[in-house]
Amino acid sequence: MEDITKIVEKLKNKEIKPYQLDNMFDSKKSVEIRRKYIESLTDTAFKHIDKYSINEKEAMEKNIENMIGAVQIPLGFAGPLKINGKYANGEYYIPLATTEGALVASVNRGCGIITKCGGCTVRVVDDKMTRAPVIKTNSIIDAIKLKEWIENNFQKIKEVAETTTKHGKLISINPIIIVGRYVYPRFTYKTGDAMGMNMVTIATEKACNFIENEMKKEENGSIKVHTVALSGNVCTDKKPAGINLIEGRGKTIIAEVFLKEEEIKKYLKTTSKAIEQVNMYKNFIGSAISNSMGFNAHYANIIGALFLATGQDEAHIVEGSMGITVAECVDDGLYFSVTLPDVPIGTVGGGTRVETQKECLEMIGCRGGDKALKFAEIVGGAVLAGELSLMGALAAGHLAKAHSELGR
Amino acid sequence: MEDITKIVEKLKNKEIKPYQLDNMFDSKKSVEIRRKYIESLTDTAFKHIDKYSINEKEAMEKNIENMIGAVQIPLGFAGPLKINGKYANGEYYIPLATTEGALVASVNRGCGIITKCGGCTVRVVDDKMTRAPVIKTNSIIDAIKLKEWIENNFQKIKEVAETTTKHGKLISINPIIIVGRYVYPRFTYKTGDAMGMNMVTIATEKACNFIENEMKKEENGSIKVHTVALSGNVCTDKKPAGINLIEGRGKTIIAEVFLKEEEIKKYLKTTSKAIEQVNMYKNFIGSAISNSMGFNAHYANIIGALFLATGQDEAHIVEGSMGITVAECVDDGLYFSVTLPDVPIGTVGGGTRVETQKECLEMIGCRGGDKALKFAEIVGGAVLAGELSLMGALAAGHLAKAHSELGR
Amino acid sequence: MEDITKIVEKLKNKEIKPYQLDNMFDSKKSVEIRRKYIESLTDTAFKHIDKYSINEKEAMEKNIENMIGAVQIPLGFAGPLKINGKYANGEYYIPLATTEGALVASVNRGCGIITKCGGCTVRVVDDKMTRAPVIKTNSIIDAIKLKEWIENNFQKIKEVAETTTKHGKLISINPIIIVGRYVYPRFTYKTGDAMGMNMVTIATEKACNFIENEMKKEENGSIKVHTVALSGNVCTDKKPAGINLIEGRGKTIIAEVFLKEEEIKKYLKTTSKAIEQVNMYKNFIGSAISNSMGFNAHYANIIGALFLATGQDEAHIVEGSMGITVAECVDDGLYFSVTLPDVPIGTVGGGTRVETQKECLEMIGCRGGDKALKFAEIVGGAVLAGELSLMGALAAGHLAKAHSELGR
Amino acid sequence: MEDITKIVEKLKNKEIKPYQLDNMFDSKKSVEIRRKYIESLTDTAFKHIDKYSINEKEAMEKNIENMIGAVQIPLGFAGPLKINGKYANGEYYIPLATTEGALVASVNRGCGIITKCGGCTVRVVDDKMTRAPVIKTNSIIDAIKLKEWIENNFQKIKEVAETTTKHGKLISINPIIIVGRYVYPRFTYKTGDAMGMNMVTIATEKACNFIENEMKKEENGSIKVHTVALSGNVCTDKKPAGINLIEGRGKTIIAEVFLKEEEIKKYLKTTSKAIEQVNMYKNFIGSAISNSMGFNAHYANIIGALFLATGQDEAHIVEGSMGITVAECVDDGLYFSVTLPDVPIGTVGGGTRVETQKECLEMIGCRGGDKALKFAEIVGGAVLAGELSLMGALAAGHLAKAHSELGR
Repeated sequence: MEDITKIVEKLKNKEIKPYQLDNMFDSKKSVEIRRKYIESLTDTAFKHIDKYSINEKEAMEKNIENMIGAVQIPLGFAGPLKINGKYANGEYYIPLATTEGALVASVNRGCGIITKCGGCTVRVVDDKMTRAPVIKTNSIIDAIKLKEWIENNFQKIKEVAETTTKHGKLISINPIIIVGRYVYPRFTYKTGDAMGMNMVTIATEKACNFIENEMKKEENGSIKVHTVALSGNVCTDKKPAGINLIEGRGKTIIAEVFLKEEEIKKYLKTTSKAIEQVNMYKNFIGSAISNSMGFNAHYANIIGALFLATGQDEAHIVEGSMGITVAECVDDGLYFSVTLPDVPIGTVGGGTRVETQKECLEMIGCRGGDKALKFAEIVGGAVLAGELSLMGALAAGHLAKAHSELGR
Repeated sequence: MEDITKIVEKLKNKEIKPYQLDNMFDSKKSVEIRRKYIESLTDTAFKHIDKYSINEKEAMEKNIENMIGAVQIPLGFAGPLKINGKYANGEYYIPLATTEGALVASVNRGCGIITKCGGCTVRVVDDKMTRAPVIKTNSIIDAIKLKEWIENNFQKIKEVAETTTKHGKLISINPIIIVGRYVYPRFTYKTGDAMGMNMVTIATEKACNFIENEMKKEENGSIKVHTVALSGNVCTDKKPAGINLIEGRGKTIIAEVFLKEEEIKKYLKTTSKAIEQVNMYKNFIGSAISNSMGFNAHYANIIGALFLATGQDEAHIVEGSMGITVAECVDDGLYFSVTLPDVPIGTVGGGTRVETQKECLEMIGCRGGDKALKFAEIVGGAVLAGELSLMGALAAGHLAKAHSELGR
Repeated sequence: MEDITKIVEKLKNKEIKPYQLDNMFDSKKSVEIRRKYIESLTDTAFKHIDKYSINEKEAMEKNIENMIGAVQIPLGFAGPLKINGKYANGEYYIPLATTEGALVASVNRGCGIITKCGGCTVRVVDDKMTRAPVIKTNSIIDAIKLKEWIENNFQKIKEVAETTTKHGKLISINPIIIVGRYVYPRFTYKTGDAMGMNMVTIATEKACNFIENEMKKEENGSIKVHTVALSGNVCTDKKPAGINLIEGRGKTIIAEVFLKEEEIKKYLKTTSKAIEQVNMYKNFIGSAISNSMGFNAHYANIIGALFLATGQDEAHIVEGSMGITVAECVDDGLYFSVTLPDVPIGTVGGGTRVETQKECLEMIGCRGGDKALKFAEIVGGAVLAGELSLMGALAAGHLAKAHSELGR
Repeated sequence: MEDITKIVEKLKNKEIKPYQLDNMFDSKKSVEIRRKYIESLTDTAFKHIDKYSINEKEAMEKNIENMIGAVQIPLGFAGPLKINGKYANGEYYIPLATTEGALVASVNRGCGIITKCGGCTVRVVDDKMTRAPVIKTNSIIDAIKLKEWIENNFQKIKEVAETTTKHGKLISINPIIIVGRYVYPRFTYKTGDAMGMNMVTIATEKACNFIENEMKKEENGSIKVHTVALSGNVCTDKKPAGINLIEGRGKTIIAEVFLKEEEIKKYLKTTSKAIEQVNMYKNFIGSAISNSMGFNAHYANIIGALFLATGQDEAHIVEGSMGITVAECVDDGLYFSVTLPDVPIGTVGGGTRVETQKECLEMIGCRGGDKALKFAEIVGGAVLAGELSLMGALAAGHLAKAHSELGR
């Protein structure tokens, strides 16, 4: 303890920088010293952030810098949820980490209803990760030449890009958007079981270097092209963007369930018509007039709690919040579906290696390799359950009593 | 243990439902039994999610249902960050919970530069929480009458709404959007130190009941109005939406810093011009052609890590990802600012009461009441630091070498 | 003729510039000479653009420069259309100028159905014209001071702005958006019967000069504010923009009609259900996934043809294309409405003074003063008619035969 | 005249319907009778809409129904404009039909500057027309099968679609978007010199019939697919839409010019820096915070006036208003470009056959076949001229005097 006090003094005197502790002490100690340092600086007494069981050495290698401990997020579960997927088949117990009271209960209610009604169908209709640098040229003429060169040399670019990765496969460079003399080629990869942002960034950097060098050989070196930034925001990573809604990014997931009228009455205390109306007034008209990209009630809630539980990147909740809920009366009840065009997830790499998160992935049989598509289907099913539950609650609480008053 | 095994059997046989355990056992025990139940069902051996120190009783009352443990998220810090705010004045150490390697280091670098250059100016230019129900009427005529009635009776509605809350103040109902015969009044509140979604939902429900009842008295009961859903998506909660970008929601925060050319050279190894260009090509042109709402590089990363550390609702990261970065060469260097129109946060309520999160708020002197605006300014400063760091890195790595090649 | 040939030579030799002819000859002659000049330069023989009857003198003063003649657009009519408006009450014959075959027929069919079913209800729910300059300040601090000054001095600003105009009234400056250190106050005016863009631009320029000068007196001249551009694109003029969708611009118009099931069957050869479905699949889901601002089938067609016929600014068709169509089955048939948040129109000024356009306005009793709101209601009714007709056609042609195949 | 009075009476008594006149009289007469009918009904004296020279017979066959005359739009010209295009090379005189005073003068000024500075470079980087029906299936499973079938049978679908047209070529069906169980395949065609909407609608209808029939043969008829509407709004026709911004529609045109600092000073009375700043504050920041799709000052004005002059569909002005202006200081002056992703135009068909419009196309050497790409380049050049002129005016009027005041 004596020892620590001295080090903390040195930190305060800037003789040592906090990150340098990692090379001076073992992981546990360096975390402890930094924590003491912050305690001393901010006059805080930490009694909980030090109560972690995760391996700080691995965390510090892969997930965090300047580590001082861990935050604990309460973890609950919803389910069983019966899923009829291509990869996920059976009943699942969904891990949800959140501090928003009532969320787990709501998803759980949705799981119950879906399971009683025979389960939901889920499919992953697209699977990819993208990176789009911005490349500057001298003029429109050169921008067009660059675009054409990329199109004509895709195989070569693919080979170069793939030298950087075991799992990543460059499947297309599309679209290649030109604005003025700037070019935004959207590199699109399969990334296996990893979410893959880092993988595709590294591969794209190599590809860009190759492109720059090769272009120098064209027309006696008269064409100048330069990669200004490896991300030119056409990717689009961690920002809401039409291009992701339209073209998809990460996993594009669709889930659906058919509910019989008697089931809706019994379990949701409402009617198919009432749910259809709430969907039209709220998710379509309300979202349209707000200029929103989320034609749904609350995808972000379920995506958020599942992402935290399973070690996904929390900033990707942004992308997962976009999507369209459909609720449509059919002869014998309700057709209900969720479409999620942009869900970036993985079962290896990043936060999935943290011990608690790994256990959550294990709960749904999605730990490790060859599990990403199964995981995506479970995500789709869980979002369907959460969305159905909230839409049902809105319809039950309110539209029912409206019936007599608003006949027309 | 014997005991637990039997209960687990009963759970499996559906004699007991998982949530009922909360009434049968003390909190710790009910969490343990559910965990065993899931272990048994999913053939998982939990060795970490049970290693939590947070008070499960409080968590189960306010934050989670079907609790089985907690997830641990690695926690680091960035700073000191010198902030010249109206409420936050001084140097702060920013808690960041994330599993995305390099993020804390990047924010830390930004903090260092800003602090060395005299600190950043941050202001909260708007502060509110909104809820917009959808109210159905029979015709355009009635929709207009409803709108006018709401406008003419604001004081009465305000009184009714505020009976439900100590801290919430209804400050306006604006805009009141009509689409066909459906009306979307956007109730706008001050919510003190709480993020306030629940508070404003309850207040708005009471207001809607009042409006429905009062409207019945108009014109001999001939006007029918009905609240179809308490949220009509014009709020807009947890979805990317133009209305939030334009009108603001939560805290609207702006942060800026002026950097001298020599400082940019010394600390960021680049130039003001290079940063300005990356901002134009990537954050403006790239975002524009992608139809994005995020004219920035990575607000969501910093917002995400700060939200997790301090107990904010993770689904609100969606809203915090929108915003505009400005980088502009000035006579003596660079003007750099971030504008975040929609950051829903609080220092009381929700996840802020969880023990580890509370400690993180304490680190920055933002625990408890009268701290929300201070906290908002720190959020703004942290986002500025993270954004500056990444933009500087992009500019340094790439634009520098472009200089000789792309003279024009 | 001799004479003209010589002048044309001088034009070719650049001894005279084409616009200078207006001061050298009477209007007819200057138009003729320019036409000959272009004929000679482009080797074209003009046999039609010279066949105009409009007064070229007035046109050249107010509507066009470098005039060489006129373009003729075929003009048809649709109707009668029965409108139950606040200002427009009765049956109207709608003038439509277009070259798109089948458009007039389609609108005409819609008019017939609506009229047979008792007419449509139309209301103007908002009426204003906006201009939002961008004002640069030195820092966030000054930006906030500027915003507060504008809020606190609204009456003074209003007086100054209104000195420039007889008809324009400044009703609010809202929102005042701050991004970084730049301020975008949205000046909102009533403009009487004129569309009013020029009027509000002139008034806003004067207001901005006043604001700049007054701000200089604050804090010993330490605050610098400067109007960078009179339009900062927050207006938003002639571009599709969320702010106009949400806040409205020009006339915000809503029109609705209730159709009985038997009427739908008789006149549209389809069912309410089929129309509701096309509206959901096409106007809502299809528009949502395309990231569109037009949740309708073809408002732009009707707006376009009406704007050309009545002398509105063709570039404003852009704004008029946004809006939301609602089609909803009700007990006895169909509720159908169009909501047009942003229709900039006038009955005086601009192109409304051209002789043919004036006659078209006269056809609907909307020529001259005190007619703009009546005109707006007729526009709303016409769009409703056109939209109903196309939606009915889509439903009839296709959904009918789907019924047996797609039972669920 | 006697005769006409009687017919008008019959029209009033609904013994004859207005459109039936076309079969009873020659074209001129039927137009005249309808005009008299409207005169009589609306108490209007038409003295100008009857003064047309266009061939009413052809107009009534192809462009208009219920014709009563023509509207005259004043026509001016701007130029010469020097264009260095792939198809348009030389100096052009741009026909502009508008009633917005000052517009022609502004474009003309831009033309003058560009021409003096050596002309502008223009290229068409994409050229296509799209139609995206919405096809309903019974479930996600069938939706995926449908998508795969379309992908696997592209050649067959292409053959079928192309039987309906001489000029249209189906080049891809991409993307094929699935939302729930609904499928939106975006049929993409080359349409030669026609704008092509009708052509691609007819071709797509045939393709959809083929797809429906062929799908019936799959899996013993168990798969049900049905084309609900030939346009599912993913096209997206005549509405502002992200998909068009991102993927392009019609002609995707880029135009650029380099201006030397001395030229900017001489001709625009401003500086490259001032123009760059207005572009950033107005076209980027202002548009971003307004959630706009138009990152430009006024493309719609130029597009509008050119479309009216040359017989394009006025409703397509909506699409042409989207796009991005770039203004960037370079070593020796200014790089200035306009990017127009979505300009639907043609030189044959539709309104291009009207006599006055044909003459305007002739003015620029774009009448008839093999001219569409040349025409597109001229459109791009004209928009560049108009945009440069307004941006220069804004910069000159305002930023200049700001220089001393706002040093930083």
